Amino acid sequence: MDEQTVLVESDGLEQVEDVLNGLFNSSKQRAASIGPGYRRLWETLEACTAGGKRFRPRMVMTAYELLGGRDSAAAAVLAASFELLHTALIIHDDVIDRDFVRRGIPNVSGTFRDLAEAGGSAPVDARHRGLSVGVIAGDLALSNAYRLLDTIQTDNPTRLRLARILDEAVFAAAGGEFLDVDTAGAHDAPPVAEVLQIARLKTAVYSFEGPLQAGAVLAGADERIVAALTDFGRDAGIAYQVADDLLGVFGNETSTGKTNWGDLREGKRTALIAYVATRPEWHHISALIGSPDMSAADAVFVRKVLVESGARDYSAGLAVDYANRARRHLEASALPTALRAGLESVATAVIERVR
Amino acid sequence: MDEQTVLVESDGLEQVEDVLNGLFNSSKQRAASIGPGYRRLWETLEACTAGGKRFRPRMVMTAYELLGGRDSAAAAVLAASFELLHTALIIHDDVIDRDFVRRGIPNVSGTFRDLAEAGGSAPVDARHRGLSVGVIAGDLALSNAYRLLDTIQTDNPTRLRLARILDEAVFAAAGGEFLDVDTAGAHDAPPVAEVLQIARLKTAVYSFEGPLQAGAVLAGADERIVAALTDFGRDAGIAYQVADDLLGVFGNETSTGKTNWGDLREGKRTALIAYVATRPEWHHISALIGSPDMSAADAVFVRKVLVESGARDYSAGLAVDYANRARRHLEASALPTALRAGLESVATAVIERVR
Repeated sequence: MDEQTVLVESDGLEQVEDVLNGLFNSSKQRAASIGPGYRRLWETLEACTAGGKRFRPRMVMTAYELLGGRDSAAAAVLAASFELLHTALIIHDDVIDRDFVRRGIPNVSGTFRDLAEAGGSAPVDARHRGLSVGVIAGDLALSNAYRLLDTIQTDNPTRLRLARILDEAVFAAAGGEFLDVDTAGAHDAPPVAEVLQIARLKTAVYSFEGPLQAGAVLAGADERIVAALTDFGRDAGIAYQVADDLLGVFGNETSTGKTNWGDLREGKRTALIAYVATRPEWHHISALIGSPDMSAADAVFVRKVLVESGARDYSAGLAVDYANRARRHLEASALPTALRAGLESVATAVIERVR
Repeated sequence: MDEQTVLVESDGLEQVEDVLNGLFNSSKQRAASIGPGYRRLWETLEACTAGGKRFRPRMVMTAYELLGGRDSAAAAVLAASFELLHTALIIHDDVIDRDFVRRGIPNVSGTFRDLAEAGGSAPVDARHRGLSVGVIAGDLALSNAYRLLDTIQTDNPTRLRLARILDEAVFAAAGGEFLDVDTAGAHDAPPVAEVLQIARLKTAVYSFEGPLQAGAVLAGADERIVAALTDFGRDAGIAYQVADDLLGVFGNETSTGKTNWGDLREGKRTALIAYVATRPEWHHISALIGSPDMSAADAVFVRKVLVESGARDYSAGLAVDYANRARRHLEASALPTALRAGLESVATAVIERVR
């Protein structure tokens, strides 16, 4: 999932920055004793954590604060843990996709590929070096997500529940990534159910469900509240991913920070593709989707077919549908008014991006 | 580090197996609800955890039991955590080295590469699929190392110390892997100091120091004991790696489970190479070391030069030297007699392999 402007405000976000800064500062210092290159790796990890909109920390802090939590220092550590999990997952996702750029600038692999090339390595070796450092950097981010969680001062049952929520997020994200890898290059079009399952696993669990659950559990919320936030997070997260896939094809390249035909060329299995594959127009474009030779003109043609076949409207409708489901979970719950209002605005922002 | 016959006995090892079996059984069940492929991934992860000699668990259990620890269930969880860390590190090490085989059988990446090929993927795509699944599988093993640690029933200060020991192991192993990647393909021969630093970071910390420290801390041992075990672990671990590198070049292929010229062809930076590079014979072999075109006959020639230049004797002496240093830390300490004897035998076994 790319960072987008689905934001809620929280006073605790500065504390999250303090936690992350503290972790990176001490890690850079420790790394320097091993060598300047390892310190450089930590600087790169810090830089690629710094660029985000802190979406997951906002979810944690919002749930925690609006459910009456008072220990904002503990919540900030929890929030930072989810941010590092995000960093770990995008770094390894980029390794798997062999991407060297994120949001228009070199990612970890790109940075170390460029350093290797500048040091005289052949391009193929430099790329491999970059991807290898990406594997290592993602491991460090993942390990530190757990490290932070371990330092939260709370009672044992709460700590264990938080650990289980983090584990579930990793388990789901790994499962979603696995399904993505396992179906990549498949020639059959994906069923919508598969697209939605991967959206839930890869995005909703670690970005919405997990952070909201964790914030609520740390605040000591009752189980009905935690369940409502889980339901909300699942459906809002699916809505977010469906909308994000739409933006990946129809969005403004400047605001999304990526080319809007990469997904088509890679054959990314989205609701757009799942829908158009059920229409007669499919045979006009099926050979183009996932073709590394796709030209800019091909992309314009594919986009036109996606609009005319109704695939664009279908996907936008699907995003709205899931956002509405998310909203209904809020209505049926006993959430405090301020939290409900905050999450309403999240559900709205998720789909406003594609209106 | 490859599993070798550096073993100590412990009655708690069956409990370690129970912990690992419990984790894999519940994870396979959870994974099946996501899909048969994800369950397959967990089965592969289980299979590649099952093959080991449980060296790190033995270190944990030995320290714990011989320092008077009585909660063998808790120690078994701690021991299983280090075993999963080992699994994670070797899987990602194989991804970085683009190895598809370990101990003569397909590793995670090899298994999923073969499945992809059987499913009709082109070889290059199948390899990429395999490596991608390797990235995911290593993340799951790493995450579950922390997951297990979180479930140990102990007081908060002890739990935090155990978490720090695990973090330090990951931090060091990642640092060592980074230095390995960062110097791969360098044309200058490595200084011995660099070889020993990487041996400590990549092997000693997570395989010897960390497990011994953790077992001692969980047993409530005093700080002088923990410090002595740390010193022992560092030097024994370095001795182990130097010996392992010797076996990688001069060992019996059947007993090591790998070809004994892969390290030469890859240009692995070992004490052997560090030494021979300081000798006049170096110019006879420097062009061969690290050459992908190295033939079996070239390897025979390189081995002969390594013997005649004294590099083999030098490396064997270095391993003995570090094993003796490790022993001296035991002598200077107040360790219980049985633990000292057990670790003496570890130090002896480490170097007996290369005599």
